[in-house]
Amino acid sequence: MNGADKLCDVLLVNGVDVCFANPGTSEMHFVAALDRKPEMRCVLGLFEGVVTGAADGYARMADKPAATLLHLGPGLANGLANLHNARRADTPVINVVGDHATYHVQYDAPLTSDIESLARPMSQWVGRVETASAVRRVTEEAYVASVSRRGVSTMILPADAAWGDAEPEDLTPVEVPAAATSSPEKIREAAAALKSGKRVAIILAGKALRKEALEIAGKIAAASGAELFSQQSDRHERGAGRVAIRPVPYPVGMAVAALAEFEIAICLGKGVPVAFFAYPGMPSQLLPAQCKAIELGGAETNLLETLELLCSEIGASSAKPALNRLTQGELEEPTGDLTPDSIGRALARRMPENAIICDEAITSGRAFGQLAPGIQPHDHLSLTGGAIGIGIPLSVGAALARPDQKVILLQADGSGMYTVQGLWTQARENLDVVTIVYSNRSYAILQGEMRNVGVNQFGKNARAMLDLDRPDLDWCLMARGMGVEAGRATTIDEFSRLLDAALSNKGPFLIEAMI
Amino acid sequence: MNGADKLCDVLLVNGVDVCFANPGTSEMHFVAALDRKPEMRCVLGLFEGVVTGAADGYARMADKPAATLLHLGPGLANGLANLHNARRADTPVINVVGDHATYHVQYDAPLTSDIESLARPMSQWVGRVETASAVRRVTEEAYVASVSRRGVSTMILPADAAWGDAEPEDLTPVEVPAAATSSPEKIREAAAALKSGKRVAIILAGKALRKEALEIAGKIAAASGAELFSQQSDRHERGAGRVAIRPVPYPVGMAVAALAEFEIAICLGKGVPVAFFAYPGMPSQLLPAQCKAIELGGAETNLLETLELLCSEIGASSAKPALNRLTQGELEEPTGDLTPDSIGRALARRMPENAIICDEAITSGRAFGQLAPGIQPHDHLSLTGGAIGIGIPLSVGAALARPDQKVILLQADGSGMYTVQGLWTQARENLDVVTIVYSNRSYAILQGEMRNVGVNQFGKNARAMLDLDRPDLDWCLMARGMGVEAGRATTIDEFSRLLDAALSNKGPFLIEAMI
Repeated sequence: MNGADKLCDVLLVNGVDVCFANPGTSEMHFVAALDRKPEMRCVLGLFEGVVTGAADGYARMADKPAATLLHLGPGLANGLANLHNARRADTPVINVVGDHATYHVQYDAPLTSDIESLARPMSQWVGRVETASAVRRVTEEAYVASVSRRGVSTMILPADAAWGDAEPEDLTPVEVPAAATSSPEKIREAAAALKSGKRVAIILAGKALRKEALEIAGKIAAASGAELFSQQSDRHERGAGRVAIRPVPYPVGMAVAALAEFEIAICLGKGVPVAFFAYPGMPSQLLPAQCKAIELGGAETNLLETLELLCSEIGASSAKPALNRLTQGELEEPTGDLTPDSIGRALARRMPENAIICDEAITSGRAFGQLAPGIQPHDHLSLTGGAIGIGIPLSVGAALARPDQKVILLQADGSGMYTVQGLWTQARENLDVVTIVYSNRSYAILQGEMRNVGVNQFGKNARAMLDLDRPDLDWCLMARGMGVEAGRATTIDEFSRLLDAALSNKGPFLIEAMI
Repeated sequence: MNGADKLCDVLLVNGVDVCFANPGTSEMHFVAALDRKPEMRCVLGLFEGVVTGAADGYARMADKPAATLLHLGPGLANGLANLHNARRADTPVINVVGDHATYHVQYDAPLTSDIESLARPMSQWVGRVETASAVRRVTEEAYVASVSRRGVSTMILPADAAWGDAEPEDLTPVEVPAAATSSPEKIREAAAALKSGKRVAIILAGKALRKEALEIAGKIAAASGAELFSQQSDRHERGAGRVAIRPVPYPVGMAVAALAEFEIAICLGKGVPVAFFAYPGMPSQLLPAQCKAIELGGAETNLLETLELLCSEIGASSAKPALNRLTQGELEEPTGDLTPDSIGRALARRMPENAIICDEAITSGRAFGQLAPGIQPHDHLSLTGGAIGIGIPLSVGAALARPDQKVILLQADGSGMYTVQGLWTQARENLDVVTIVYSNRSYAILQGEMRNVGVNQFGKNARAMLDLDRPDLDWCLMARGMGVEAGRATTIDEFSRLLDAALSNKGPFLIEAMI
């Protein structure tokens, strides 16, 4: 066996059995090794941004990492934007990046680059396999770092480490240290705050937004009068019957207003909320200046147990959390124009049970988001890092991880074009994904931001950079060109009919909504 | 005026008047400033790989840099693969990468990342504009570095440096130091080698492959008996009436054989040729071990004058270079199957004068390349850094720089999918580009490499990663979906008819060749 075989075996014994890939020449021995392991599921992306975004979506739903296979520095570079999103989602991912044979690097061949420098900004852990005999140790390190610290591990595999001889050996799963709760002092501090009579916000992210953790947070809120907020996260178990929680709004002014009254903020899963961007005269931090923050830990923390400890510390274990009421059946069929609002209502009425919403709708998703608490319980996967182009890949990964759940992708057109190649992978793997493209033929969010900087009349250059028309994109043609069936809706009736058909069938379908 | 206005002014006064862009919120003040400068041509790419690859193609043909406008770390990351190619082509490019306002970085907002770490591997020069008052100095440094060292300059522009007040001032073009020739000692050493009676290879790259430089190299070769070779370069002025020169073959075995007999290699424009990849038991360097290398300088060198000095040093100024003979008219119309070979002949017969060939045909371009010396003189732009996905963007930039030349893009299907979004920019800018997609529904080069590592029977996973079928891509639908007219050829007759039509019209057209 060679180093590449060993790498496959170590991944498999640790339960990593999906590899999203786009290989090149320097990874041929790894490809050959993967070909000897039919129990590894290899999924091709026609661009590395699809590969890494799919790995993110997979891990968010499978709660375990997939591997990626990337070709040298440029292949990694192409995947970095979605690794950035994975990093901000605290998603475990194990990148295997091929490199030249160790002795070849000195010649600065055309594909040589500083892979470590590229990897570090988007990775929690970066390592290099020096020889075939180091494969097991480095792969285990990458795996443990990825799982226990919930993040992106990037492992560089030189070609000679892949093709070099490795010793056969009995492999067992590596031990992953259990996640610790927040410290007793911190928990007591939070409990005291909740009992202080002051206005308290509990701001949740990551695994604190899963059903069970939310239940406990809901009890704490019910017993203490604290208010619950969510930050953008890998996965929010949302909808009717689940604990009511408000998102921290994206627009800075709205976020500041929503949080203005609080004297204490208890944060779990992520640090204090900050503004996506700076604006002249606006604050960077969203909490009021006098608000005290108590941070109970990030993704590496056992958030469920921390919430349980806090709940029992304030004696709230038998409190009744406020749950979202199912109002889906009360929604009326929308009529009139095809708009983000009518689309949101048409979809909310039709939400199947146990669906997965992948959300890269940007400016168009607000209406659906407002209805979401009252609809069938579902998983909501959001754009965590702000790097657009995650939607289609995320849907690929989520659908692969959960073949029995319907995936509904809310996709802005400008962002969708970034990784449009992912539609082909939807088709090849026959994934059960309904993609709704909100076709507004513009970077609408940026047109709003231009107005924010005081520009209301757009000239030639602003229009050139912020409009997506001239020519209009035809998403149905593009989807069919990649093997995905598609239909165009110009009225809400057409949209609803297409959606009914798409929801009643299995397999990928794209609806181009001409809003 | 603000810092962003100043940045535009400094670019414009130095002749940088094209900006390939995909902006985001942190660049809105720069977008607003660009909108106040209609003399700057802003060209939108629907993905940053299109933006950077177009800047590369533009600079190769315009011999001056374009600016790019990229959104923070992830926007830069998306453009890195084609910046890698630009770096390997020694192409001048000026990236303007927006960043958060300086005071906002400490809060680690979702889009924050280490931009310098991402930029350095693919940039010759990296700088940060600390305040609006530093804009002129930093922009001039970026410009000079890019032009005089022929490379990628990456300039990071925090939002507050863009929106901060800047002093109006009279701007003049910055002085760029003239490129020096190789040293007299080196030139004498090369001259002595040429007169030694030993077998000498002259290996040219970059600006040494332009018409005038090639003429001089041809005289040197004619007078001395040395043999001329080319390495993959930004732009090779190729074809009939130009000096005959052989490319160093891509496959290592062929390259080693082609260079086996040489005792001395004189290299201009690039260092000694090295293998793209390492293979067990194969050398990394392509020259024989006993061959002496004389390197006369890279892209920063005045290669034309260096060749002139060498030519006069050996008294070859009146020698007659061996020129390629025009054989295009003697080519017979191909019949039979549609293959890379018949496509190459059909195109060669029809080559218009003064065309630009953008070449990302990978395994399918060999036939055309072999006929190229005998056809109408043309510019040949190649994939210099091995990062696939350059073809469509390169065609965009080349066509923008040279609206009076027909651009013919030879595009492998697998590579084309990497930056397929660039077709939309072809359409929006109504660029005169004929795209020929060699649709072989596979990563054919990798299938060859798998055989090189001894795998001849492909299993489930190898087929999953190396085939592009199931479903087949339909390039005509994808092209029309982005506003580019297209036609499919399944026979060589259909192909020739489509090509005749495409060459006789202006504007973008795509031919999907089902080889």
